[in-house]
Amino acid sequence: MPVVALLTDFGDRDIYVGVMKGVIAQICPQAQTIDLTHQVAPYDISGGALALWGAYRYFPRGTVFCCIVDPGVGSQRRPIAVQSRDYCFVGPDNGLFWWVLDEEGCEKVVEIQNKVYWLPIVSRTFHGRDIFAPIAAHLAKGIPVDDLGPEIEKESLHRLPPLRALIGKEQIVAEVVHIDRFGNAITNLREEDFADWVQELGWRSWQARIAGVTFSEILSYYGEAKKGEPLLLFNSFGLLEIAVREGSAQKDLGIEKGRFIEIVPVDYP
Amino acid sequence: MPVVALLTDFGDRDIYVGVMKGVIAQICPQAQTIDLTHQVAPYDISGGALALWGAYRYFPRGTVFCCIVDPGVGSQRRPIAVQSRDYCFVGPDNGLFWWVLDEEGCEKVVEIQNKVYWLPIVSRTFHGRDIFAPIAAHLAKGIPVDDLGPEIEKESLHRLPPLRALIGKEQIVAEVVHIDRFGNAITNLREEDFADWVQELGWRSWQARIAGVTFSEILSYYGEAKKGEPLLLFNSFGLLEIAVREGSAQKDLGIEKGRFIEIVPVDYP
Amino acid sequence: MPVVALLTDFGDRDIYVGVMKGVIAQICPQAQTIDLTHQVAPYDISGGALALWGAYRYFPRGTVFCCIVDPGVGSQRRPIAVQSRDYCFVGPDNGLFWWVLDEEGCEKVVEIQNKVYWLPIVSRTFHGRDIFAPIAAHLAKGIPVDDLGPEIEKESLHRLPPLRALIGKEQIVAEVVHIDRFGNAITNLREEDFADWVQELGWRSWQARIAGVTFSEILSYYGEAKKGEPLLLFNSFGLLEIAVREGSAQKDLGIEKGRFIEIVPVDYP
Repeated sequence: MPVVALLTDFGDRDIYVGVMKGVIAQICPQAQTIDLTHQVAPYDISGGALALWGAYRYFPRGTVFCCIVDPGVGSQRRPIAVQSRDYCFVGPDNGLFWWVLDEEGCEKVVEIQNKVYWLPIVSRTFHGRDIFAPIAAHLAKGIPVDDLGPEIEKESLHRLPPLRALIGKEQIVAEVVHIDRFGNAITNLREEDFADWVQELGWRSWQARIAGVTFSEILSYYGEAKKGEPLLLFNSFGLLEIAVREGSAQKDLGIEKGRFIEIVPVDYP
Repeated sequence: MPVVALLTDFGDRDIYVGVMKGVIAQICPQAQTIDLTHQVAPYDISGGALALWGAYRYFPRGTVFCCIVDPGVGSQRRPIAVQSRDYCFVGPDNGLFWWVLDEEGCEKVVEIQNKVYWLPIVSRTFHGRDIFAPIAAHLAKGIPVDDLGPEIEKESLHRLPPLRALIGKEQIVAEVVHIDRFGNAITNLREEDFADWVQELGWRSWQARIAGVTFSEILSYYGEAKKGEPLLLFNSFGLLEIAVREGSAQKDLGIEKGRFIEIVPVDYP
Repeated sequence: MPVVALLTDFGDRDIYVGVMKGVIAQICPQAQTIDLTHQVAPYDISGGALALWGAYRYFPRGTVFCCIVDPGVGSQRRPIAVQSRDYCFVGPDNGLFWWVLDEEGCEKVVEIQNKVYWLPIVSRTFHGRDIFAPIAAHLAKGIPVDDLGPEIEKESLHRLPPLRALIGKEQIVAEVVHIDRFGNAITNLREEDFADWVQELGWRSWQARIAGVTFSEILSYYGEAKKGEPLLLFNSFGLLEIAVREGSAQKDLGIEKGRFIEIVPVDYP
């Protein structure tokens, strides 16, 4: 049973997602559609890219990801389909896929042009329904990406800045890239990058500062802190996270997306 | 694989929708249930009717729509099932289906009375679980609507006022009937009605006024406006929409559901 | 087609639920996953337990319930799997399953230890993805709970206080245990307990007091009250509910979770 995973900024108060599922069921009744999330903030391309990057590797081989965060709908941004070794990705070429493709590689990218696979009438404001959902359903049915349009160069794809913290010899500056449902503040500092940096530090210890709180250790899980106490840990996606045990880093510490956390040696001037 | 589409005002913080899906899976395990939306405002029958009208045509033939916005649950309002050429509709007779049936027509309407297809114990406050979900599942399994109860006249169905703007020779008054997740304000003015009116105007140009903003053209897609700029377009459901590019007509212009937009010739006194 | 029902406090703004579904689809592609709800308040174990208790009996025999409200993730709380006559339950041993097991009984409880069925890499903060979803998928595929780890005593399970009101000869004190989407305030007073109590009262009548409102009767459905009027009824789960017809007991009467309603004979001093 082929899987189509949906990722959008459509929220849940409208029929937009339901209609896309209706279109998919019509074209590929045997597909199982899975909602990755539809609560990407409106127009937040990097928020969508982060969600996709965190999730895609947990899906079955052959999953078609239909991803729509598309402020440029109707204009000149290209609709694309990407075949990687294990997955297909369908959506607008605006950076949404970049962090995944940069990691997963891609075997082929095409610009979606072949209208045979679109809905007969295509609006200029809802390509999710009229182009991307039908294409995803046809891919789930087994058509190759080649059928969708001309191949384009991977190098020509829209990029995002790397999903990595700024790392200097004496300083790390990481950015809060997502606040989750529990108010955990997730940053772009990767566990492996931090490990390398700490090794470079040698015998010197470090401290991390954000929102007036200073941390000097990384815990393994929330329960290692006392209730209501702030903590740092590398989360299940390998990213540094600021949390408050059974509380909310967002509400209790006032940390929002876009905020920086700075990590320096303790003897840093 | 039969499709059961669910549309309710149940929201997502309770188990109401999940329980209905459990009931459907028990009766018709092979059915695929698709959430149209559950975020219709509580008791908002015309909001539910609008959602269904916008969505139904994108679903596979044979889809059973199980729709519940039901302030009258337990009282005398009739539970009905409708067979149209391509679809089945199940829910309370309170207007919810009117805009669809007015457009799609219906071959047969029955009042649901045959308790064979209900859950054995029927509460007086959750017919979604006890009557409508089981009926939808049995319809998905293939029983004909005739089995559910006696036929009733289409003419006796509860109606809603037409989903159309008020159109005069010199003036259109359209109403905002939905605010979507992006803050787009969707009105009841249909593209074809506007086109007819403009043709009648002849050489005269028009202007539209709402919330202190005056518009004199209809764009094709959001990207034709500058970022943050208000615009008018006919959306992907053929309805006039007030939007703000990468912003929100609701937040930025203060437009709420129920507000009017007036369109008149520029030389209108 | 096996059913896996998901119940969590993960909300919908992250990829957590979507990722669990990806994992399940990878291990047991034929499983149908049904969302019970993901809007249990963060860390609210009894809120999750109530949702599960209300819902489980409406699911097909053989349903695997994968339930995660897990403030203790990563620490010493035990991951468990329970086989009852008709269902399987998977999640942390923190009381989440207690109200169901107390009613449904259980044939076998095991502590999940056999890592063969986990994801190869297990984080310390997301056991939903790494342990519980894979286990649920394997159970849906048909492995017996015995394969998951050593049996433990039902008596050793974490308990919750009974889901029942405090009932004295002359007084009932019930607690609001949930506010639903419509603002209905659901209490822990069960219909059968109230019926027994009323029978004991004999010829004496009773009154119920909460939030400055006094009730002296129980209605059958919302429509029996006038619009905007408060009412009491036993809801479709057999629990006493305070409601306002086409309004909200939460907003209109200011009733929140945790509030008490007192019921006494009218001639009570």
